[in-house]
Formats: sequence, C-alpha cells, structure tokens
Amino acid sequence: MKLLHTADWHIGKELGEYSLLEEQWNAFHQIVNIAETEHVDGIIIAGDLYDRAIAPTSAVNALESMLRELNLEKQYPIYAVSGNHDGATRLGAGHEWREQTKLYLNTTLAGAFEPIETNEAQIFLLPFLDPLEARTYYQISEDEAVNYSTIEQVMAKIIPDLVNNFDNAKKHILVTHFNVTGSGNEDYKFTSETNSRVGGLKGVPAALFNDFDYVALGHIHLKQASPNEKMQYSGSPVKFNTKEAQSEKGVYIVDISEEEVSTEWKRITTGKDLIVLKGTYEELITPSFYEQYDRDGKNWFSITINGIGARDSRATLSGIYGEVVELNYNLPKLINNEIDLAIDTKDQAEEDVIAEFYEKVTDNQLSKQQAAIVEQTLTEIKQSEED
Amino acid sequence: MKLLHTADWHIGKELGEYSLLEEQWNAFHQIVNIAETEHVDGIIIAGDLYDRAIAPTSAVNALESMLRELNLEKQYPIYAVSGNHDGATRLGAGHEWREQTKLYLNTTLAGAFEPIETNEAQIFLLPFLDPLEARTYYQISEDEAVNYSTIEQVMAKIIPDLVNNFDNAKKHILVTHFNVTGSGNEDYKFTSETNSRVGGLKGVPAALFNDFDYVALGHIHLKQASPNEKMQYSGSPVKFNTKEAQSEKGVYIVDISEEEVSTEWKRITTGKDLIVLKGTYEELITPSFYEQYDRDGKNWFSITINGIGARDSRATLSGIYGEVVELNYNLPKLINNEIDLAIDTKDQAEEDVIAEFYEKVTDNQLSKQQAAIVEQTLTEIKQSEED
Repeated sequence: MKLLHTADWHIGKELGEYSLLEEQWNAFHQIVNIAETEHVDGIIIAGDLYDRAIAPTSAVNALESMLRELNLEKQYPIYAVSGNHDGATRLGAGHEWREQTKLYLNTTLAGAFEPIETNEAQIFLLPFLDPLEARTYYQISEDEAVNYSTIEQVMAKIIPDLVNNFDNAKKHILVTHFNVTGSGNEDYKFTSETNSRVGGLKGVPAALFNDFDYVALGHIHLKQASPNEKMQYSGSPVKFNTKEAQSEKGVYIVDISEEEVSTEWKRITTGKDLIVLKGTYEELITPSFYEQYDRDGKNWFSITINGIGARDSRATLSGIYGEVVELNYNLPKLINNEIDLAIDTKDQAEEDVIAEFYEKVTDNQLSKQQAAIVEQTLTEIKQSEED
Repeated sequence: MKLLHTADWHIGKELGEYSLLEEQWNAFHQIVNIAETEHVDGIIIAGDLYDRAIAPTSAVNALESMLRELNLEKQYPIYAVSGNHDGATRLGAGHEWREQTKLYLNTTLAGAFEPIETNEAQIFLLPFLDPLEARTYYQISEDEAVNYSTIEQVMAKIIPDLVNNFDNAKKHILVTHFNVTGSGNEDYKFTSETNSRVGGLKGVPAALFNDFDYVALGHIHLKQASPNEKMQYSGSPVKFNTKEAQSEKGVYIVDISEEEVSTEWKRITTGKDLIVLKGTYEELITPSFYEQYDRDGKNWFSITINGIGARDSRATLSGIYGEVVELNYNLPKLINNEIDLAIDTKDQAEEDVIAEFYEKVTDNQLSKQQAAIVEQTLTEIKQSEED
C-alpha cells in the first residue's frame, strides 16, 4: 500500500495583495500527476487545508474542486485532518457524506479514536486541538485541569487511547498537525512525571509517537523540520513567505508494504517562484541587475532596499518587477536600536523635525531637493487644512 | 409518492438576545414525526436553511445534526435549495457527496436545469438568485443586460429552459425560493412584452410557474401568502417575529400519486410561544394581568407599553415575564409625527429641556418625583465628568 503525504495547502492565502490560488492549482496538478505516476492507494492531507477559519468563497470553490477531482473523479481515498488554520466545524460540515466515497476528513478529537481500516493499515486521524478541547472530551474536572494544561500533557493521555485500538496484524499510521519537538530517540514515560512539567514544552515530544509505523505531520512548512524518517512533515506545496523562498517543495510517497515503512520525496516545481532581492535602490533599478530575473507576473518578488529608497520606490519597483509582494527597508541603525529617536518637537518647525529624523536614521542630511519636497508637502497639508 | 414540504428553518436566528435553537429542535422533531406517520418518500426544504450567509458554528452543528437524522439515519431523500439568507457557496460545499445518499441540495442556477428523477416525478431545484447571477450564467452582453435586470425578466428566461427538460410521463415539481406575486390565473406571455416591463414587479408572477404540477415555495413565512393550491409557501416552522405570532405553523404533505396533486396541511405546535402584549405599564405589572400567561422561559414576550413606562421598565418586565424579546413604547403623537420635537436648547437649563421634551411627547408634566430623578441624574453626570 502506497500513500501520498501532503499538508498545509492554505487555500485562500494571499501573498501581499496577490492571491496564491494560481500557484496552488499548479502545485495541485503536480500532486495529481505524482499520485497517478506512483499508483498510490490514497492521499493524506495533514491539516491546514484552508488558510482561515472562515475561508473566502473563492477558496471554498477551489478546495471543493480539488477534493472533487481527487476523490470523486480519480477515486482516491483521502485521509485528512483539520489544522490550526482551519475552522474545524465549518470544514467538517458534511463529513459523514464525504465518507461515502472514502473521503475521510476528521475535525474532532472524538473522531480520532476509531481508525480508518484498510487491508494493511489502520489510519488514525488526529486533528489539531487545544488542551481545552481535550479536557472537555475527557470531562477533566476543574481540580485536575492543571495536569492537562499543555498540549504535551493532553497528548500523553490521547496517544495511549489511540494505541489501545491497535490491531497488531496491521501497520499503524497517524495523520496529525502539531509542532513536534525532539527526534523521537528520547525515552518517553507515560507517568505522573509528564504531568509535573506544567507549562513546559510548547510542542509534542516526538517520542510520544514511537508506537506508530508512520506519522504524517502537518503544521511546519519545511520538511527539514521532520523529527525522523518515520515522522515527517511533508511541508507546504507552495512557498508562502521569504523564509520558504529557498526551500524545496514536494510530497512524500509512503510505502507501507514492507516490514519497515519507507518514504520517497517527490519534488513539486514552482510555477511562479518567490524571489528575494536585497540591494541599494540604485542597484535594484539598474537594468543589468533586474534583467536577470523573469518579471511581469512570472515571479513574485520580496524586495529589501538597503537605505531609504526614493519617494516612489514601490511604484517604480512594481513597474520594473511586476508583483512585489513585500517591500522592506534595511536601515541597520534603526533595526539595531542604536538610534535615539526622541526628537524635541516642541520648539522646532515641522521641516526641522523631519530633517533631524532623516539625519538620525540615515546619517545623511536632506539634499536641497529633498528639503524642497518636504517644504512643499507641508505647505500643501497646511493649505488643505485651511480649505 | 408523498413529499413533505417545509422551508425557512433559519437555523442560527435569534429573537432579541435569545437563541431560537431549542424551539427549532422542537419543530424539527415534529417534522420527523409527521414524515414517519405520513410515510413520506422525501422531504423538500425550500430555502433559508440558515439565517445568515456565515452561520455561527452552533448553527452549523445543529443543521448538520438535523440533516444527518433525516437523511443518514432515517434515510429520507432530501430536496433542498438555498434561499436568500443562505450563503450559497458555503451551504453548497460538499453537495456532490451529500447526493450519494440522496440529499440533494442545489445552490446554483447551473444545477437547476437537470431535475432529480424519481419513478413518478421530476423535481427541479431552483435556488434563490439575483438577476446578475442569471446574466452571468446566460452570458448576457452588456447591451442586453437592461432586458434582464429584474427577477421577473430572468425567470421568464429560466423557466422555459426548465420546462424544456420535462419528461411528459412524469409529474413536475419545482422547489424554489422567491417572492411570488399574483394568483397564477393571469395569462402570462413569454414575449418581448415581458422584457419591456423593466423595473416593474419586484417578484415573480405566479403564472410563470403554471406548467408545474406543484411548486414548493420558500421565502414568505406565512402559508396564507400562497398564490394557489399548486403553488404554496409552507411557511417557517417556528415563529420569528410578532407578525407571525398569531399564525399557525406547519408543513404540507404533497401527494403526487393521483392525476391532480393534492396537499394536506399538518400543524406544528409551538413549544415556547411568542406572546404579544400591549397595555399601560400599570396593567402590564398587575398580577391579575400577567398571571394568565405561562412565564419564566415557557414563552417569549413581545411587549408594547402604552406610554413611556417607568425608569426600569425592561428590568421589571423581564423579572415578571422572563424572556422579553422585544420592548416597544406606544406614543401615538410621536408615531404620527404630530409633535414638533424641535426644542430650543440654547438658553435653557438641561432639566428644562428634558421637561419640555417629556411634555411634548406625553402631554403630561414631569411629576415632582420625576423632576427630582432628572435633577439627580444630571448632577451625577456632571460630577462624574469632573472626577
């Protein structure tokens, strides 16, 4: 049995003012191709299908189309959970009907304990949850709540209840969506020790999952964050920010036919890439510099200007690069908190306050031309206030 | 073949600050009982399942439970459309999966043309829509838009396209959600005449539906608004406002086995009733008056005070009646616009302005006690402003 493991689609997300939908469709089509080429028997989506609890209708239409293609048209079973970005109730609406065609989408703790059974495997679907939801489910009393106040504490209660339902003749797969810490090599004791570590770790120790043959994780967008080969983040199929700009995107093919579960990474190539640029304003607007990039909607650009740029930086750079999803200024003294920005405004003319601020931030004085712009702008403001 | 016809559930609606959910469950259980007693073959829900486009999660959970009980547990086919209160996209998400168990929920014009086929009937599901949606579907050009600017104009185009798909061996049922005008006895010509009546009627002429054997309507909450016996509003199963307080609630059982479709009204009794009271404040707080009603959460009260009531009318009345969902004041002169409310405030003390306003509205002068309350309140306000 082979499963495709993906996660963190974040349908509905925007980069700056630009919708990611086209790029998400591009990634989706590649996922379908990989599923077909690899002849997988099902598809795992480990949470954060949507970017927001109340997804815009364009996102609802897109996700519905994707699920329709995978499950109704190509008839892949789907094993999915809700992530922290999803609205569990809204995403879960109608899930019993979706199960009629083996689209399993679990969004509640109550639904996690009964695994989906295939001939070879038990697939447990454990959605993202917070400790309060677990305390409600287990009817933890107020007195006991302190012992179930972290996600680690409640997971130390939940996981044994999943393991209790293991059929030893089968492989055991967990689909879930948390920040997992450690490598899983640590010993983990299900004792009162756990409960004494109140408010300690923010994540779930990987060692808690050691009884499973494979843990398909969502939440972290980079596969490098995976604890070990049996507990992996597939990462998001699309790059969502500059931290992810250099990373490789893809899915895992999980083969559970042999004694040991094995996985293989399948790369997804970007349609539009997210290109991160940094330079002085003069460099950034020099043709020999910018002509090395495919621009005009072919890529997204996250640009950092060393210095303060020009009066119309954003418009000029958008004119050159097309889709500028982020524009930052690198002003080291300001960033390093080296500047005392306190300026005595009381007895200074407005133009002098601006000039002083400029000098503090840039170490330069306003040029004659800049000073003239300041003066004219202030005059215009005063006039408009009098009108 | 027998169908139960209901509509306008408005799950998620509140009366004043009170949730209607308990009353909606009460009505729902009666609907299930009627369906079982009458051995119906399916259930029509003619729009406005939710009260809002983005329903609160409590409403999502409630509607899902109701649909689960009707369709998955008791295995009734469901024939439903979205109404103007529903968010079509969100309500329609997952509809292809719901169809696996004969829960047909259509929220798009595109989905209206292919009827659900049973042995005896074709059931067309036409959701609420606005003219723009129809123009988009039919790819009406800008030049032609003026001829498809009212709901009547677009329905005069849509209905013949439904009728075109009639199988003459079967009965033809339409489930829809509009304000229907006229009795259906009028002649209706599908000609350019229709298109010349730009911006005329706000509703859909009943005569447009004459080709159908039964039209199950939603939108208007009172069954009395039905154009004729073959085009009926079932009304809402719960009373939502004082206009509906005196009305009988229920569902229609539609029998389409005979040559002529026949219908039978089945009443739903209220758990909590909405009681409309009107009287002077003194009457309303007199035990011999209020003791004739079941109070303390057993009913909702919409109260109109003849006059201006007392300083703490709302608190006092809530203490007596329990759930006061509405509190109004009947001040005839004010309502009839007979009062010139312009008061010269410039050279008057605040207490005199208030006294003058009171006299204009009630025809009485402030009593000594009332004047003392005004004075003390103004003093407290001034003090708190100085603190």
